[in-house]
Amino acid sequence: MAFIMGGSHSKAMLLSATGDILAETDGPCTNHWLVGVDKCIEGIYDMVQKAKISAGLDPDTQIHSLGMSLSGGEQKAAIQKLIDQMSERYPKLSQSYYITTDAIGAMATATDHGGIVVISGTGSNCKLVNPDGTQVGCGGWGHMMGDEGSAFWISHLAVKTVFDAKDNLAKPPHDITYVKKAMDEYFQVSDLMGMLPHLYRNFQKSHFAGFCRKLAEGANAGDALCQYVFIQAGKILAQHIVAVLPKAHQELFSGELGLPILCEGSVWKSWELMKDGFTQVLSQAQAAHSHFQKYSLLTLRHSSALGGAKLGAQNVGANLPVDYSSTANVFFSHSFTKQ
Amino acid sequence: MAFIMGGSHSKAMLLSATGDILAETDGPCTNHWLVGVDKCIEGIYDMVQKAKISAGLDPDTQIHSLGMSLSGGEQKAAIQKLIDQMSERYPKLSQSYYITTDAIGAMATATDHGGIVVISGTGSNCKLVNPDGTQVGCGGWGHMMGDEGSAFWISHLAVKTVFDAKDNLAKPPHDITYVKKAMDEYFQVSDLMGMLPHLYRNFQKSHFAGFCRKLAEGANAGDALCQYVFIQAGKILAQHIVAVLPKAHQELFSGELGLPILCEGSVWKSWELMKDGFTQVLSQAQAAHSHFQKYSLLTLRHSSALGGAKLGAQNVGANLPVDYSSTANVFFSHSFTKQ
Repeated sequence: MAFIMGGSHSKAMLLSATGDILAETDGPCTNHWLVGVDKCIEGIYDMVQKAKISAGLDPDTQIHSLGMSLSGGEQKAAIQKLIDQMSERYPKLSQSYYITTDAIGAMATATDHGGIVVISGTGSNCKLVNPDGTQVGCGGWGHMMGDEGSAFWISHLAVKTVFDAKDNLAKPPHDITYVKKAMDEYFQVSDLMGMLPHLYRNFQKSHFAGFCRKLAEGANAGDALCQYVFIQAGKILAQHIVAVLPKAHQELFSGELGLPILCEGSVWKSWELMKDGFTQVLSQAQAAHSHFQKYSLLTLRHSSALGGAKLGAQNVGANLPVDYSSTANVFFSHSFTKQ
Repeated sequence: MAFIMGGSHSKAMLLSATGDILAETDGPCTNHWLVGVDKCIEGIYDMVQKAKISAGLDPDTQIHSLGMSLSGGEQKAAIQKLIDQMSERYPKLSQSYYITTDAIGAMATATDHGGIVVISGTGSNCKLVNPDGTQVGCGGWGHMMGDEGSAFWISHLAVKTVFDAKDNLAKPPHDITYVKKAMDEYFQVSDLMGMLPHLYRNFQKSHFAGFCRKLAEGANAGDALCQYVFIQAGKILAQHIVAVLPKAHQELFSGELGLPILCEGSVWKSWELMKDGFTQVLSQAQAAHSHFQKYSLLTLRHSSALGGAKLGAQNVGANLPVDYSSTANVFFSHSFTKQ
C-alpha cells in the first residue's frame, strides 16, 4: 500500500506482495503542512479503507506496509510525529509505516539507478539521487522561500507583474492586458485590492496556483506575457538541475539516456511552453561539465505511489518487484553538439 | 482621539478640541489583517479607555471623533465593516469614526501641503499626496505581493540568500557566514529545515521582520552581506518614489525643501545603511524629471496618530489646529548638481 500526496491531491495504491496493483484511489489534499496533522491522518485512513474495499478486501484487513511519499517528507521530527499519531489513532491500519519525500517516491517509481527528479506541481522541488542512494536537494522550501518554477510561482510571477505595472514600480516585459483580464476572471476581482483576501485571509495555495492553467491557455493562444512566465519557469527549473549537477556521480551521465531527469507534477504538461528557457539554461551549464553530453526528460506512467510502496516494503525487508521498463517514458532528449 | 496602528504596535493619542495632547498610550498590534477584526476592535477599545484614564477623564466620556490610521486602511468594504462592528459593540465609544491609511495619517501629521510618504516598518508602502489632496500609491500590498524595502523584506532577502547559497541555486553576493549564524541564533534553529515552522505553521510576520535588527547590527559591524541587503532596501524604497514621481504636481518640487519625502517606520533608523542605494536610484531618476532638483527626507517628531486625529476631526467638520513647524524634522537633504 502506498500513498502519494501533493499540494492539491493525493493518490493511494494497494499492491500485492508480488507487485500487482490491486486498487488505486484518489483523495483530497492530505499535505500535513497545509491541512494539519489531524486532517492529514484522517484523509490517509479514508483512502486506505477505500482502496481495500475497491480491491474486494475486508476493510479490517491489516496491511503489511504503508509507504507514503509526501511533500515535506524530509522533516524527520514532523514525520515521526505523523507516524506516531497515525499508529496511535488507527493501531490496526498497517504493520509498518514509512514516509519519504514526493521526489524520492517518484524516483523509486522510475528507476533504482538514480537520476535527478524535478517536481513542479503546486510547489516545486529538485532532488539528485546518486546510484549509491545518496541524495542532494535543491528547493522544496514552499511558497514563502522558493517554489520557483511551480504553478504557484508562475501564477505569482504573473500577478506580481500586473501589480508592479499598475504601481509603475517595474516595467512589465510584455503587455499585461490579457493577464490582468484573466486574473480578474479567475479570482473574480475587479481591482488589485480585491486580490488581498486571496493572498491573506482566504489564501489557499492550491487555488492561487490554479491560475497557472489560465496562463497556460493564454500562452497557447499567443499572449506574450503568459509565454514569458512559462519561459522563466523553464529557466529556473533547469537552474535547480544545474545546482545539483556538481554532485552527480559520473555514472549518471553515461547511460543510454544521458542524464535521466524525471519530471513530475502538472506544470510539466506545459513542457512545450517552458522548453526554450529550460534548454537554454542547461546548454549554458554544459560548458562547465564536460561529461554532461546528453540528457533525457522522463515522465511517470504509474503514480509515484508505486515508488513509495516499494520503499515502504524495502524498509521492512521485503522486495516489491517493479518492472522498470514500463514505469516511465522519455518525452524529450537532447545531445549537446560538440563545438 | 486618534490611533496609529502598524504591523507590530499601536499608538493612541487623545487630543483636546484645541489640539493639545491630553494622553498618549501604546498598545499591541491591532492590524485587523493580522489579528482579525475582533481582536483589533478590542485592542482599540482598551487603548481608548487607557488614554481617557491617563488624561484624568471619566472612562464613560464619549469622545467626539475617533480617527484611525492603519495599514490596509484603503480597503473600503473592510474598513466600513470595522467601523460598523466597532460602533455596534461599543456604541458609546465615539460620536464618529474615521479610518485612513497609515501613510495618509503620517502625511497629515507632517504637513497639509502634500508630499511623498514612504513607510518602511514591518511592511512597506509609498504614497504621493498632491497639494490638492489627490493621492497616488505604490506598494503596500503586504508580504505576499511586495513589502519591498520593509523589515520583513530585508529579513527575507537575507534568509533567502542563505537558502539559495546552501542549495547552490544562486551565488550569494557576499559571504553568508555571518547572516547564517545570526539567523540560527535569532530563529533558534540549527539548519534550514528548522526555518520551516517560522515560515509556515508558526509564521508571525512581525517576528520574522524582527530579524532585520540583527542584520542592521551586522551591517554596522561591517558584514558585507548585511550591508548589501540594506543597500538593496534603499534602492527599492527609492524606486517606490520614482514610481509615483510622474504624478507629482509641479508645486511639490518648488518649496524650500525641494520634494518633501516623509520617512516613517523603524527601518529608517538604518538610513545610513540604505543611503547609498537610495540616493543612487533617485539620482538616476532625476535625469528624466527636470523639475526634480532637490529633495529632503523628513521624520515625524510626533506620532502619526496626530494626523489621524486631524483627519478624523476634519471628517466631522471640525478643525484641529496643528503647528506644522514642530511636527517633522529634515534629516537629509540633497540638491542635484547640474551637469
